[in-house]
Amino acid sequence: MVRNIIVIGSGAAGLTAASSAKRTDPRANVTVFTEDRYIAYSPCVIPWVLEGKMTWDDMVMHDTKYYSEKRGVRVLTGTKVTAVDGDRRKVTADGIEYDYDSLIIATGGRVFRPPVSGIDLGNVLTVRTIGDGKRIEEAMRDSDRIVVAGAGVIGLEMALSMRNRGKDVTVIEMFDHILPRMADRDMAGHVQRHLESFGIRFALGSPISSMDGDGKVKGVTAGDVRYGCDMVILATGIRANLDIPNMLGLDIGKLGAVVVSDSMRVYKDGKVMDDVFAAGDVVQCRSAVADGPAMSQLGSTAVKQGIVAGRNAAGGNASSGAVASPWVTVIGDLHIAGTGLSEGLASYYGISTVSGMSEGYTRARYYPGAMDMTVKVLADAATHRLIGAQIIAGEDATGRIDWITEAIVNGTKAEEFLARAENAYCPPTSMVRDVLISAVEDLCDNLKG
Amino acid sequence: MVRNIIVIGSGAAGLTAASSAKRTDPRANVTVFTEDRYIAYSPCVIPWVLEGKMTWDDMVMHDTKYYSEKRGVRVLTGTKVTAVDGDRRKVTADGIEYDYDSLIIATGGRVFRPPVSGIDLGNVLTVRTIGDGKRIEEAMRDSDRIVVAGAGVIGLEMALSMRNRGKDVTVIEMFDHILPRMADRDMAGHVQRHLESFGIRFALGSPISSMDGDGKVKGVTAGDVRYGCDMVILATGIRANLDIPNMLGLDIGKLGAVVVSDSMRVYKDGKVMDDVFAAGDVVQCRSAVADGPAMSQLGSTAVKQGIVAGRNAAGGNASSGAVASPWVTVIGDLHIAGTGLSEGLASYYGISTVSGMSEGYTRARYYPGAMDMTVKVLADAATHRLIGAQIIAGEDATGRIDWITEAIVNGTKAEEFLARAENAYCPPTSMVRDVLISAVEDLCDNLKG
Repeated sequence: MVRNIIVIGSGAAGLTAASSAKRTDPRANVTVFTEDRYIAYSPCVIPWVLEGKMTWDDMVMHDTKYYSEKRGVRVLTGTKVTAVDGDRRKVTADGIEYDYDSLIIATGGRVFRPPVSGIDLGNVLTVRTIGDGKRIEEAMRDSDRIVVAGAGVIGLEMALSMRNRGKDVTVIEMFDHILPRMADRDMAGHVQRHLESFGIRFALGSPISSMDGDGKVKGVTAGDVRYGCDMVILATGIRANLDIPNMLGLDIGKLGAVVVSDSMRVYKDGKVMDDVFAAGDVVQCRSAVADGPAMSQLGSTAVKQGIVAGRNAAGGNASSGAVASPWVTVIGDLHIAGTGLSEGLASYYGISTVSGMSEGYTRARYYPGAMDMTVKVLADAATHRLIGAQIIAGEDATGRIDWITEAIVNGTKAEEFLARAENAYCPPTSMVRDVLISAVEDLCDNLKG
Repeated sequence: MVRNIIVIGSGAAGLTAASSAKRTDPRANVTVFTEDRYIAYSPCVIPWVLEGKMTWDDMVMHDTKYYSEKRGVRVLTGTKVTAVDGDRRKVTADGIEYDYDSLIIATGGRVFRPPVSGIDLGNVLTVRTIGDGKRIEEAMRDSDRIVVAGAGVIGLEMALSMRNRGKDVTVIEMFDHILPRMADRDMAGHVQRHLESFGIRFALGSPISSMDGDGKVKGVTAGDVRYGCDMVILATGIRANLDIPNMLGLDIGKLGAVVVSDSMRVYKDGKVMDDVFAAGDVVQCRSAVADGPAMSQLGSTAVKQGIVAGRNAAGGNASSGAVASPWVTVIGDLHIAGTGLSEGLASYYGISTVSGMSEGYTRARYYPGAMDMTVKVLADAATHRLIGAQIIAGEDATGRIDWITEAIVNGTKAEEFLARAENAYCPPTSMVRDVLISAVEDLCDNLKG
């Protein structure tokens, strides 16, 4: 029997799942349906393309021909799935029915649109697909004043991208500090001052109440202040796209996303489905740190889950565990990274925290090019387990955040980490005692106090 | 009672131990004896100073005044300890006896001098102290052809430093690949080709049999070939400096260094001594990976051990565990890092290995500035435990080698690592699936085969 595997969605999770399935069962027919015209690109790159650092062509890694010839996977672009029948194992797209033995849902998420008047005006734009990016590029030509709604990573990246194109930029955020949920107030303040040094303005603690305009948006009102503008970029967070899961009647978790097992199988009426999988932004994950679900919504998580979903959809036996969801971004001269829980998220999960902090350098202090590095680490006050970390540095935050993520996901206590941690040293790449270890040392001192 | 703590040696281990002791017991009298004139510098920087990237002044971080005023530690430079009496707890230096309650031996190591004729000729120089560096700087003026004896990290760094100063450089190594012990043949070959692209020549598998000259060295004979030269830089490895340990009759391990407990206490006749500690290059460590002792000989290890020795010497209770000894260097355009065991070292310990390898990029493939990154990982074939890794990359190897070191030191199996590993991603700093994770994935495939 030749296995038919259908994947819905062509983002990181969908295409990875398709390749992983074909690699696991080379005889399988693997078909990907996607509404998008472009495939195999990372939406994370859009801010840099808009800034002019690279082109749209640069960011597209592969086309459908590559997938059919090199990966043995058929990708049908511009193709909307309009019905799924889980009992008969059939997917309908463009009026045609396709049989499946295994179905993988990788439909990702959509930008949350705040329910305020004026949200549907022209030039109120999102940043999710290349199509979105090209709409912003077009609108930029006649836009001098831009409001970015939302001070998460995408919002801040877009704010600086637009500012570097000479625009007047205001970031509006309903929480009282930038990078809410992801970073703590002290670390976020550091990033905010850096962005302000480029001339970006911030309106914090300011929920948007309305937008106004005449066909096109002309202003945004938030916290009783009206901000005149020619364009609004919505960076208001991603919600799982539940169109397909709802057609199948799948169980949706309390974070509004599809519940999955560690094998990336979905549930219906509390029972796991053998033949339907989901991966990427459409699912909710188990937190590696807290007792409960977590949204990851990262490209790297999507790839990891896609590998597992694809393998299992093709008859394999793989497992994707709980997540700490390390992230990193480069904004201006800063590399900003985090993992696990921030103080705010820890509080949401009812965890009381103790923190440690260290300020140092990315290289030996005296070595040319050494840049500041600040590391903050968090432990659960009750168990002393490491539960989160944030790094702001002029360079090289990524490997360090992955390092402490390994310890966090492994359930390591702060004192255990400190006793065994070693760091590679040479003057051009690190201090003799890495700032991360010094931060955990400070944390251990604070846990004693 | 005011505690007298004496430290012998002013390298990373000695000065860190002194500061750590004073911090633990602020009332203690802490005195450091050192033969060196300069203190608080990292010998690792010498190659870059000689290349002209920084000055001798740049590399000295602190003077004795800083230590007395800011750390409360007295440092006596140019002062040789000539006797130690462990029963009476007395140290003699410059003819004066000093009492101690706790003694910390941090006398480091000395460059191994191969027992060949001509080794004592002029311009046969080592790279260990600022004094050494200044002697090389002086000798460089009249030296066109330089032989570097030893293709370890220091040897390669010195070779490129000299080459970048326009010298004709030949590296002679008795093993058949560069970075012996630290790196595997395939990875080392990559580094060698890079150095050859700068015009550096290599003579491998060539033990030095003699040196000749007339007052000053004029040639080195190795493997039956004579290499004419004006200077020889000995980078032939470090042996523990056992002068003080031998005065005390301490137990010396099979690697020729002082045996210590996890509290960094020394042994005499098989019994631990309560009041004598040792740290840094003078000690042998427990391997975190193999069943046996290991030499670490790294500045970062010296600092870690110094903290523990200092704390315990002042009445504290700290512990320094087994080591994987991650290292990193920057040579030309390459960041080269390793941790745990190489294939050669694993074989020495009787461990049979399986490897995994992945080649990718330091950033998203299409992102400007993306550089090659190659990661090789090793597991114990019997237990599947991760036991080593090597990284060659255009940038950012340090955090990644620390990341896998955490897993290695924690006894993680390859499959466990792969199941839980997550990596932070953004196009300017990483691939969506980090090369390190892909290498472990390859390793897991090979462990199945």
